[in-house]
Amino acid sequence: MLTRETVAQYILSRPALAGSIDLEGMTAEEVGDGNLNLVFICRDTSGRAVILKQSLPYVRLVGPAWPMTEDRAGREAHSLSVYGGLAPNLVCGLLEYNEDCHILALEDLTDHEVVRSRLNRGGSHAGIFQPMGVLIARVLFGTSWLSLKEEGFRLQAGATVNTELCLISEELIFTEPYFGGPRNSVRPSVDSVISSMRTDETWTTAVMRMKRRFLSVQEALIHGDLHTGSMFARGESGHEEFSVKAFDSEFAFYGPIGFDMGLLWGNILAAASRAAALGETERANSLVAEIEKSWLAFEQQLRSDWPNRQKPEEYSDDFLESWLADILDDSWGFAGCEAARRVIGLAKVSDIETLGETEYVHAVNVMMTLGRSWLLSRSGRSFEDYHQEFSQLVDKFSA
Amino acid sequence: MLTRETVAQYILSRPALAGSIDLEGMTAEEVGDGNLNLVFICRDTSGRAVILKQSLPYVRLVGPAWPMTEDRAGREAHSLSVYGGLAPNLVCGLLEYNEDCHILALEDLTDHEVVRSRLNRGGSHAGIFQPMGVLIARVLFGTSWLSLKEEGFRLQAGATVNTELCLISEELIFTEPYFGGPRNSVRPSVDSVISSMRTDETWTTAVMRMKRRFLSVQEALIHGDLHTGSMFARGESGHEEFSVKAFDSEFAFYGPIGFDMGLLWGNILAAASRAAALGETERANSLVAEIEKSWLAFEQQLRSDWPNRQKPEEYSDDFLESWLADILDDSWGFAGCEAARRVIGLAKVSDIETLGETEYVHAVNVMMTLGRSWLLSRSGRSFEDYHQEFSQLVDKFSA
Repeated sequence: MLTRETVAQYILSRPALAGSIDLEGMTAEEVGDGNLNLVFICRDTSGRAVILKQSLPYVRLVGPAWPMTEDRAGREAHSLSVYGGLAPNLVCGLLEYNEDCHILALEDLTDHEVVRSRLNRGGSHAGIFQPMGVLIARVLFGTSWLSLKEEGFRLQAGATVNTELCLISEELIFTEPYFGGPRNSVRPSVDSVISSMRTDETWTTAVMRMKRRFLSVQEALIHGDLHTGSMFARGESGHEEFSVKAFDSEFAFYGPIGFDMGLLWGNILAAASRAAALGETERANSLVAEIEKSWLAFEQQLRSDWPNRQKPEEYSDDFLESWLADILDDSWGFAGCEAARRVIGLAKVSDIETLGETEYVHAVNVMMTLGRSWLLSRSGRSFEDYHQEFSQLVDKFSA
Repeated sequence: MLTRETVAQYILSRPALAGSIDLEGMTAEEVGDGNLNLVFICRDTSGRAVILKQSLPYVRLVGPAWPMTEDRAGREAHSLSVYGGLAPNLVCGLLEYNEDCHILALEDLTDHEVVRSRLNRGGSHAGIFQPMGVLIARVLFGTSWLSLKEEGFRLQAGATVNTELCLISEELIFTEPYFGGPRNSVRPSVDSVISSMRTDETWTTAVMRMKRRFLSVQEALIHGDLHTGSMFARGESGHEEFSVKAFDSEFAFYGPIGFDMGLLWGNILAAASRAAALGETERANSLVAEIEKSWLAFEQQLRSDWPNRQKPEEYSDDFLESWLADILDDSWGFAGCEAARRVIGLAKVSDIETLGETEYVHAVNVMMTLGRSWLLSRSGRSFEDYHQEFSQLVDKFSA
């Protein structure tokens, strides 16, 4: 296991990292606030830094009682490298991966801020989510049969099975929040919201339909955990230093592409619900509008790559339209699941958890009600329609 | 490569086959009429037999120009062994698999007849297809997360990727018939049927939607080639010797379960269209009625296994209903694709090909028209409705 004391020795031992950093006077800091990894920022006296990330053999939130394959570092390395080829400016760069020790050396993004933190402190969201729409489109185009042909697609899908990490998603997103479990919790003030959900079989069956899609659909090498805590941002949209990058892709596997979009939307809703609960109505509406913007960016990027697909004579423009409709449907479905589980389940979000009591109740009501609606009433609705429903619920629960 | 001269030596070298057959005076006959394999019937003087099947390194129909992994024998061995555990009386038994030489030793089913041949000669179809519905249900239940849990399901799906054989299906079922290819052919009398299909973008886009499902949905270790030429039958329903068994499962992979059902239905349609073209109206209708019977047998078996699923608290009865609806939808979609490709594509069926000119035109028209309809108009229709459409088309094209 890496420690602050051994990182210099480690870097010295890696030829691929020579020149990335000056070891003389280098400092190291452990900053892993995640659940599964050690993360060290190693910085030299000139300010250059290398990030080292080593996977732990268990889930830190739970401890050694939940063992977890260290191979997931390899999943992250592989997906970062694939994404880097497809959308180099939209993901954290991979300097090298040491398979023997499960250590990734990563691009220094310490001048970026985690998007969830940025939004929680009221930072700007303008232009933050379109890049993720672009990334999702590039991943769909680049890792599906559209680029790899059918044979390459099947081989890649088979080679990137990520059973243990998928199991975490299956349990924490689809199962525990809805069927109970000791790791769920909410404040007593919203107990009734949760208990009425648990007895709502229409809701829970719809969640399990989405779980079935998560289990049985493989469309692309999806990120698998693309929430606002897996995104870095720097600067303001329109300025030269503006940058948005996804990271933490160890959940990557061949799954339904709408899952990435849906997780993003569920977390945009968390930010918007927080803003609404804090009385920042205009900001809340502007945040919700990011959902449509991210979709349009996805759609635009995919349409722009479309002429370069393999076998264009087979995959017609009409084929694309019907696929887009299915992806949109999936996205709302997964977004609905994500919204509810971020309130109830083990992996809660600070957007909601840091709110005062009145604001918390308001935000939870908005997220749970919309989560159900997104999941259950997603046929043929427009983005405008979804947006109006958000505004109405914000008013309703303020009354 | 096995030859008639070397099979005795081979059997002698395999301890697992000792006692299955008496080598003294044993005869060997090569009977492979398939496309990809050598098949030897080795029979001793007392009448006992062992079947040896060795995969060729190329597609026999095309020759060495289409190389084909011999590993597919391993796919067949694995799937036969899995199916044998789930539905021992409904699949050909596997005596042993020799991985080094790609040779399967199989149960002697020489007292059975290939179902396509049986139907072509006017043999009875009563009770023939329900067992396949049962088999499909057992496979869905036994190889999905319903039995294996989510983790086991993902591991199995990843371990049984069958890229090269899937590619054959992708090309021969979904692509070539609709987008042209030198391996297609029909008699000149139906050229117009084919050319109007090729310019029918609604049709071809719907086919590609099914191809997308074939590529992207993994639900169970499906047979992958479950037509009437992959089924053996012996005796008459209701009699003790009655037996129906699937074989030739080298296309097995984790795919959409409706694909197996759909291929079966497309081939039932071929048999029914043949009967109708020959003026055997009652028999034709009775054959088409087998479609519903096979589905009901599937549904009944799945419902009967359902209480034994893993995690019953998560997978509710409503969940089953919605899954069944999706499988039924898939089944009609794949059946529609199968119907058309069995008329046009490389792998034609003797049901249609052996007909005289007038009968051929009639059968092709029925199959192509129904194939399109099954694929495009499958929302909310009853089996009765599909059956009536068949009868109407039989009349229409006879007029």
